Amino acid sequence: MDLSAYVKSQAQKAKAAARPLAALTTAVKNRALLEMAQGLSEESPRLLRENARDLEAASASGLSSALIDRLRLNADRIQAMADGLREVAALPDPVGEVVKMWRRPNGMTVGRVRVPIGCIGMIYESRPNVTADSAGLCLKSGNTVLLRGGSEAIHSNRTIAEVLTKASAKSGIPEGAIAFLDSVDREAIREMIRLEGIVDLIIPRGGEGLMRFVVEYSRIPVIKHDKGLCHTYVDEAADLKMAEAIAFNAKVQRPATCNAMETLLVHEAVDKLLLPRLAERLRASGVEIRGCPRTRAILPDVRAVSEEDFHTEYLDLILNVKVVQSFEEALEHIAAYGSQHSEAIVTRDYGRAQRFLREVDAAAVFVNASTRLHDGYQFGLGAEIGISTTRIHARGAMGLEELTSTKFIVYGEGQLRE
Amino acid sequence: MDLSAYVKSQAQKAKAAARPLAALTTAVKNRALLEMAQGLSEESPRLLRENARDLEAASASGLSSALIDRLRLNADRIQAMADGLREVAALPDPVGEVVKMWRRPNGMTVGRVRVPIGCIGMIYESRPNVTADSAGLCLKSGNTVLLRGGSEAIHSNRTIAEVLTKASAKSGIPEGAIAFLDSVDREAIREMIRLEGIVDLIIPRGGEGLMRFVVEYSRIPVIKHDKGLCHTYVDEAADLKMAEAIAFNAKVQRPATCNAMETLLVHEAVDKLLLPRLAERLRASGVEIRGCPRTRAILPDVRAVSEEDFHTEYLDLILNVKVVQSFEEALEHIAAYGSQHSEAIVTRDYGRAQRFLREVDAAAVFVNASTRLHDGYQFGLGAEIGISTTRIHARGAMGLEELTSTKFIVYGEGQLRE
Repeated sequence: MDLSAYVKSQAQKAKAAARPLAALTTAVKNRALLEMAQGLSEESPRLLRENARDLEAASASGLSSALIDRLRLNADRIQAMADGLREVAALPDPVGEVVKMWRRPNGMTVGRVRVPIGCIGMIYESRPNVTADSAGLCLKSGNTVLLRGGSEAIHSNRTIAEVLTKASAKSGIPEGAIAFLDSVDREAIREMIRLEGIVDLIIPRGGEGLMRFVVEYSRIPVIKHDKGLCHTYVDEAADLKMAEAIAFNAKVQRPATCNAMETLLVHEAVDKLLLPRLAERLRASGVEIRGCPRTRAILPDVRAVSEEDFHTEYLDLILNVKVVQSFEEALEHIAAYGSQHSEAIVTRDYGRAQRFLREVDAAAVFVNASTRLHDGYQFGLGAEIGISTTRIHARGAMGLEELTSTKFIVYGEGQLRE
Repeated sequence: MDLSAYVKSQAQKAKAAARPLAALTTAVKNRALLEMAQGLSEESPRLLRENARDLEAASASGLSSALIDRLRLNADRIQAMADGLREVAALPDPVGEVVKMWRRPNGMTVGRVRVPIGCIGMIYESRPNVTADSAGLCLKSGNTVLLRGGSEAIHSNRTIAEVLTKASAKSGIPEGAIAFLDSVDREAIREMIRLEGIVDLIIPRGGEGLMRFVVEYSRIPVIKHDKGLCHTYVDEAADLKMAEAIAFNAKVQRPATCNAMETLLVHEAVDKLLLPRLAERLRASGVEIRGCPRTRAILPDVRAVSEEDFHTEYLDLILNVKVVQSFEEALEHIAAYGSQHSEAIVTRDYGRAQRFLREVDAAAVFVNASTRLHDGYQFGLGAEIGISTTRIHARGAMGLEELTSTKFIVYGEGQLRE
């Protein structure tokens, strides 16, 4: 079979499973999730063996040690995948929830009910656990999934998908509900994202190259998980101890994530009070600071920040610092350079806090909290498939509800259109 | 300026207006809507003059009289456009609504607030009133709009857009909030749908050719208003008088709409009781019936329905009739041929009514009511920009709420990610 026919046949299997899967009860889906967790635990030795093949290939091809670490499975990480599936089993089922129901003047009752989206195409480049996480979240929300992981994790991903498929089948999950695209050819992605009418939604998670490719060629709706260029603005009325803690957390706690801070904006009234202490703490954690002229007047050994730096998502221990003359200048900077992902203000001023929440255009806007808190678990969505940077359907952290759509149901008694 | 630069500059104007527009109060937006209504009334003579140019060109190019009638403006239709804007002014503003707000264990309060989507690209082929309707709905929901109407209505659309822009400016609406793409070149659409990062959402309303074109080339999320291939299933337990009335209404009340019925499914236990009377009524209204063998045994002078007929959205006074042996056969037929738009069952059976609502995959599912009721006004959404056939963001009738997105807002007191 050629690649195009193979991709289509895998997608059609997933599509065919969508109707029977949507009809399953919560109990059946939860049982399957527990079986899947059990399967991962039982098949640990095989998972580790297959993962070793990926690690070997990665070493041979000279992948960085950070990337190799992301790829690695071990007993703890397999346990974490299994626990993740059990947690999803414990979450409420979004399918069938009546979001709203009302009576019309002509007597008919109209309701909006949550339903699965259908068949979801997941394209990812990250760690193998995404295979299990995505399969679990899609299953619980009644969606079938076509999984396409990164080529560097092909052995791990294939084995995880196999284990999950076999375990889910035991509980009556229809064949095809967890479909895996077993191809490292990038053309497989192109074929997949053109299957309009078969795949209902594409969720890409990965670097800019993947995003551009998917947006360019997809005929299917796409919910992007794209980059985050996030700011923290320390207002003149900030509690400076809080500001220091929040800025430090937003930069250092896990710099390689999309909701980490890339640029710190500081009001000129407090720059001399905040920056020396904060810079000392940041440097002690290995952070390189790049500053505007005024920052460099306070921190003389800091290198100059460039226009390009302000546009860069470092995903690393590097921080731009800019002193602003006003709240408005901070808003303008965020509007000009931000990626509408996660933005924070630290202030004790009521009016500016409210204005920041209202006027800053981002998926999540924070007052007096770290942007690192933008996360499905932290927000209480239960689990997350990622953080959407698309402006429609689901903006920001996406949980189970965001993997559903709604349909109208109408209870009539013979109503006609006049 | 070449076409590509022109389209981009119009889109950029609309994009630039998005932030100031989003910040306006409801009062300002409502005042603008009333000014816009007033403007249309006052400029009636000019609108009629420009519309006459479109009508002349349409006659000269041999457009059908039905299409010419759709194109025509008159005093009543201008009044209806103005009234539509006044109705939108009277609707609640969706922007700023806190959909939900909750406290997390770490003490931070997380909320979801409705916000405008940004800049919406409307592409339509239909009547000139869509220009005013779309502009009004986008304005009220805080979105700027880039309008691209059909070439046959270019003079009417251009003038309506001019009048609305001028009137809205009087009330402080930012320039560019209602932008018009003054080009009859189809390439303008291709340019427009590739402006990722400038236009945030594309809403196409029109025929299959336009839909295919937009899906093929768009780099921007698309909410399609595509075809409706809708069924009515008359169950063995139906109230046959009600079934007759619903089937007649769904076919005849306005056959050229997407929610009109194309195929009637009848349970074999009631076919002889229902079909003769219903067929008589339908034929008296000029409906051509195409039937399955069993239908033709009851209605001998009916022509045979083909496989292709079951796939055809007639948008006309033609009806396929098929007798089914069971409720399940009806569900299978709908799953195989329906376009997931609007589907109805007529029955007095509680269990099958519930199963139909649950198992039929469509944007709107009806028990004992006409599919023609699938409409924003009928459902109580207040007004509609159309009926979405996309499975994400907004499924089915789209009102003001569906023209918004949400963002997370977080009220913190120094919370960090541990």
